[in-house]
Amino acid sequence: MSSAPAGLTWPLIEQARERIAGKVNLTPVLTSTTLDGLCGARLFFKCENFQKGGAFKARGATNAVFALPEAEARRGVATHSSGNHGAALARAAALRGVHAYVVMPDNTAQAKRAAVQRYGAEITWCAPTQAARESTVRQVLAVTGATLVHPYDDLLVMAGQATAAVELLTAVPNLDVLLCPVGGGGLLSGTAVAAQKINPTLRVIGVEPAGADDAVRSLRAGRIVPRENPDTIADGLRATIGERPFAEIRRLVEEIITVTDPAIVRAMRQMWEVLKIVVEPSAAVPYAALLEAPPALRGRRIGIIVSGGNLDLDHLPWSRAAPA
Amino acid sequence: MSSAPAGLTWPLIEQARERIAGKVNLTPVLTSTTLDGLCGARLFFKCENFQKGGAFKARGATNAVFALPEAEARRGVATHSSGNHGAALARAAALRGVHAYVVMPDNTAQAKRAAVQRYGAEITWCAPTQAARESTVRQVLAVTGATLVHPYDDLLVMAGQATAAVELLTAVPNLDVLLCPVGGGGLLSGTAVAAQKINPTLRVIGVEPAGADDAVRSLRAGRIVPRENPDTIADGLRATIGERPFAEIRRLVEEIITVTDPAIVRAMRQMWEVLKIVVEPSAAVPYAALLEAPPALRGRRIGIIVSGGNLDLDHLPWSRAAPA
Repeated sequence: MSSAPAGLTWPLIEQARERIAGKVNLTPVLTSTTLDGLCGARLFFKCENFQKGGAFKARGATNAVFALPEAEARRGVATHSSGNHGAALARAAALRGVHAYVVMPDNTAQAKRAAVQRYGAEITWCAPTQAARESTVRQVLAVTGATLVHPYDDLLVMAGQATAAVELLTAVPNLDVLLCPVGGGGLLSGTAVAAQKINPTLRVIGVEPAGADDAVRSLRAGRIVPRENPDTIADGLRATIGERPFAEIRRLVEEIITVTDPAIVRAMRQMWEVLKIVVEPSAAVPYAALLEAPPALRGRRIGIIVSGGNLDLDHLPWSRAAPA
Repeated sequence: MSSAPAGLTWPLIEQARERIAGKVNLTPVLTSTTLDGLCGARLFFKCENFQKGGAFKARGATNAVFALPEAEARRGVATHSSGNHGAALARAAALRGVHAYVVMPDNTAQAKRAAVQRYGAEITWCAPTQAARESTVRQVLAVTGATLVHPYDDLLVMAGQATAAVELLTAVPNLDVLLCPVGGGGLLSGTAVAAQKINPTLRVIGVEPAGADDAVRSLRAGRIVPRENPDTIADGLRATIGERPFAEIRRLVEEIITVTDPAIVRAMRQMWEVLKIVVEPSAAVPYAALLEAPPALRGRRIGIIVSGGNLDLDHLPWSRAAPA
């Protein structure tokens, strides 16, 4: 939000924790001796697929909606999203009893459409381009007077996402490494600021699909370098990193690793088979980095943020490969 | 075990708890406001799919193996199993450092074979008939001097399985109803004895596939009535109920509900989509009873034992119905 201070600070994260307590789930941390053995490390999976709405997005959206002064809240909140943030915002608005306006591309999958409608949000359809999304959301804001809640380029959203790492680092002290997926950067930036405060020696590493490696390129260039036509199965991580998240990530994240789509699918399947949890491709991205674990990660205590579990069960990535 | 006292008693269950503590997982209890809304009840899922080896079977097998006197244990343990019990026994034996002999039908799926071999058990193949299994296991016992650990017709196994209900009833007091799947009856009998002790007003209800409804028929007849050629997708529940489990179930379980295979698949899919957990068809059987919830269950606080999550991800029941 433009009125917020210069960057993401620890007090913003502490306020987020208090504000969303009881409105989102305190998700469990799972471990597996089998996966530990496969990776040669000790792994702690923070399961945000068990979060309200099936993804960590509930944290940031709930924080942003409940931080609004009453007069602004009464005019509603708006966003554009084809994914988990739209549903999370719709839920948070319903919880506060205010309107949510969600702009969605008209090719959005039925399941994601239903998730937003279930919470009573008003959907405005647009053409499936970034330009159409942005111009449509501007129209919605002009007509309704609603407040924009950006999916990641927003300090209150970033502060909310940070609370997942706070819970993990409270439940499992003495982690050496924390692996976190990177799309728009809301989760990674929040995670990095929280980790810096709670355990300054912890290494926070971002993991990104090779086919949507704008964060790696941006870190290298020292400025945001969008990737044209991102191409990856990890549909939640195709967005270009946002300015506010990038400022924190530059400052605090020493490394971003990229992983290929085949590794993501292999990681996802191992998580289903061994952990017995349903995770979406984006949520398997950090674990994919451990399939060919860099020697520096061997023997370490590694926290992994499992971002969500929303996907179409009729179209699993391995259905194609394996004839019935 | 033939040397054990007449029936399953509370002290056997308390001993089982102490014996297996630290050797099996204390599994989480999941809740979902979405599923509560769909069923018009308050549901508590005890997730044994997160148990060691992916099924509650680890509890009974571990109890039986660690209850053996040292001299007997050193001669090893044996069973016949095409499913989760074989792997659970192999793991328990490896944990104690003794041999496990598992007789398996030669048409056993590769994944289940691998689960048993992973723990170093010795597999003896046999023809895929009940007679061949039993005669082969008798030969193995004669040659090795190993102790038979039956998958369910064994008081120590039943006492071990009971510990799942003990944990659930400790974590969630004031349940009105407990739903539990029935195959050979090890889990249901243990659950019923535990519930009777901890909360005598709790109603324990068994749930069984309509295509393998030997428990319903047996309760009605007052004696064990095997079902010829059981036919259900719930492969873990095709066994005929055992004598020792049946004795407890007759005494303590007031009702067994049957569910159809389509209801089982629908329930399984809802659990994957909403709870974000991987469960096998057998584990969806109790929840399937709530899809057309009997009026008596509406508004109740209902515990559900989710038995396991081992299945072939290449062959999901809805893959057939839905073209990719």
